[in-house]
Amino acid sequence: MPPVRNGTIYYVKQPTDKIIPGETVKYVEEEIDLDNVPLNGGILLKIVAVSSDPYMRYRMREPESSLAAFCPPLQLNKPVDNFGVATVIRSEDPDFKPGDFLDGFFNFQEYSLWPPPPDQKHFLRYIQKIDRPASIPASAYTGTLGLAGKTAYVGFDTFAKEKCKQSKTLFVSGAAGPLGTFVCEYAKICNPNIKVIGSAGSPEKIKILKEIGVDVAINYKEEDIEKVLKEHGPIDIYWDNVAGPTLDAALVNMSSQGLIIACGAISAANSNGQGSTVKHFEEIFERSLVIHGFTVGTGPSAAALPKFYEAVTPLVLQGKITNREHRFSLKEAGAALASVHHGTNIGKAVIVISNDV
Amino acid sequence: MPPVRNGTIYYVKQPTDKIIPGETVKYVEEEIDLDNVPLNGGILLKIVAVSSDPYMRYRMREPESSLAAFCPPLQLNKPVDNFGVATVIRSEDPDFKPGDFLDGFFNFQEYSLWPPPPDQKHFLRYIQKIDRPASIPASAYTGTLGLAGKTAYVGFDTFAKEKCKQSKTLFVSGAAGPLGTFVCEYAKICNPNIKVIGSAGSPEKIKILKEIGVDVAINYKEEDIEKVLKEHGPIDIYWDNVAGPTLDAALVNMSSQGLIIACGAISAANSNGQGSTVKHFEEIFERSLVIHGFTVGTGPSAAALPKFYEAVTPLVLQGKITNREHRFSLKEAGAALASVHHGTNIGKAVIVISNDV
Repeated sequence: MPPVRNGTIYYVKQPTDKIIPGETVKYVEEEIDLDNVPLNGGILLKIVAVSSDPYMRYRMREPESSLAAFCPPLQLNKPVDNFGVATVIRSEDPDFKPGDFLDGFFNFQEYSLWPPPPDQKHFLRYIQKIDRPASIPASAYTGTLGLAGKTAYVGFDTFAKEKCKQSKTLFVSGAAGPLGTFVCEYAKICNPNIKVIGSAGSPEKIKILKEIGVDVAINYKEEDIEKVLKEHGPIDIYWDNVAGPTLDAALVNMSSQGLIIACGAISAANSNGQGSTVKHFEEIFERSLVIHGFTVGTGPSAAALPKFYEAVTPLVLQGKITNREHRFSLKEAGAALASVHHGTNIGKAVIVISNDV
Repeated sequence: MPPVRNGTIYYVKQPTDKIIPGETVKYVEEEIDLDNVPLNGGILLKIVAVSSDPYMRYRMREPESSLAAFCPPLQLNKPVDNFGVATVIRSEDPDFKPGDFLDGFFNFQEYSLWPPPPDQKHFLRYIQKIDRPASIPASAYTGTLGLAGKTAYVGFDTFAKEKCKQSKTLFVSGAAGPLGTFVCEYAKICNPNIKVIGSAGSPEKIKILKEIGVDVAINYKEEDIEKVLKEHGPIDIYWDNVAGPTLDAALVNMSSQGLIIACGAISAANSNGQGSTVKHFEEIFERSLVIHGFTVGTGPSAAALPKFYEAVTPLVLQGKITNREHRFSLKEAGAALASVHHGTNIGKAVIVISNDV
């Protein structure tokens, strides 16, 4: 077979504010000889789909930013990499054979060698074989069964599950995204009587919240969150994906001894290290709150990770944890990366590179 | 005996910013007939000393402020009340006899009836008999052995003690106050090898930090806290008494999976509910931090309270937990209340009403 096209997304310019498709990242067409490219004991992958996650913006900050410990920066003029799924085309590694379906950390690219070439310093070197039930789409492994789902599951299981059983109210911000819907649905599984309050930023997203059984859906662009929370609170558990003004509204409506899961700060992600301003920090001691910040796989939440597929795959098959996707092509990767910061994606933003699975 | 003077401090005007002695509170001379005032089954107390604590400013906010749950407001044109110590003069209560030394929640007043008259809604109705060793001054029971010491002890014991044993660095802000020096000294008792970094706002306070064995003493008015913390960090445990910019400096210097004890937000106390602005909240999830906010006696820390005197009295007698006082007279109560917000007190701000113990 002659060489084939190998489309690749490169990181070419650090954004000063928002990600700009075509300027921040660029689509480049290269070629690859699938039959003859040397594997050097590794494997050749066909990338099926890669994920657009909010945290990717942090990887576009100044490399010397204090964030270094959280996630290493993307390298300029190298392929963008993130969590995704792939199938094995050729293998010299006895652990993998053609046709294997893998979860891993991959380039935004049609075909990739594994391990990656020495000039590509991947953030994570991670691949894992997945036994995918035929009724679950491959792309779901970038969201509901990928980083978003894993983050929701390990965070909730580790920090919130026990308290959820005795709680009356849960508030989730960024509730219509793949992580948010997971938390809302999983909380109802843990405690069917809990009142779930969710916030999101468009009528389409409010519709999603109602579909998944959220009791109080707040469009934060049209309603006064603090007022709605006051009406339906106090809040026993707040799952925070956004920080900023929504967090302030939650802080003044928390129950005494309430719990906050600090899972993200989308309001700060685009600030190049300037952070997210929170005014009511003093409520934390005044209300005797506990806050657990975490990133998936760090600290105590890491212990829940090995149970993820076994626990969550049946819930997805039973329709108790639902999956929705906003699909982008590889050429649209820049738009996919930007969408999760503009809130324009409805469902998991996923870059589907191949439908051939 | 003829009636005697009964000096009393009244709360007369809500401050808009700082407490103004003579305007916010006022000294009034009344009279009391110690021999004949009816006790109605209660007791007559001679108040020995009352405490000036930073949280008192919260009690001077708008009554409808969200803070109601934390501490009820002072009542206008009623006596100021707070933790203090007293002796029993007369008693119709079989549990108390003349000469008993009591810890409790008392008026800023020379003589008081207990329980308080029906028109005085005390925040707390609390008295407890104390077996005071002769070498410990009565006034110490308003600070090192009072609210400040109890707060430090129960918070540290409940949330920080175990982690302290495995930690390399502790940072304490507001470190030269009675709560701060307690935390610094108690941490060294729990782990003699821990590096204690303390911040305070004057050369006199830096001198106190050096006296009590703080390893790195930062004058935040003269030094760049963030830079000093970077040099001596990362910080495993941060005991936060101040919030605001000092908290921001700590957040960007925390260890992964570090612990923050949110014990106070003096930077917010004078803002009439406008709160303390924190910029780097996103570090909480990025660094997988845990924050425990608490007020003494609320939540899990309440369990440590009954052990307080038994655990801490020997440490005070042995000189391992030290006590320093900045004494004010009853007439100077306004200045005492203001001092803890201006940082002008050196040691525990205590209003000594009677030296006759």
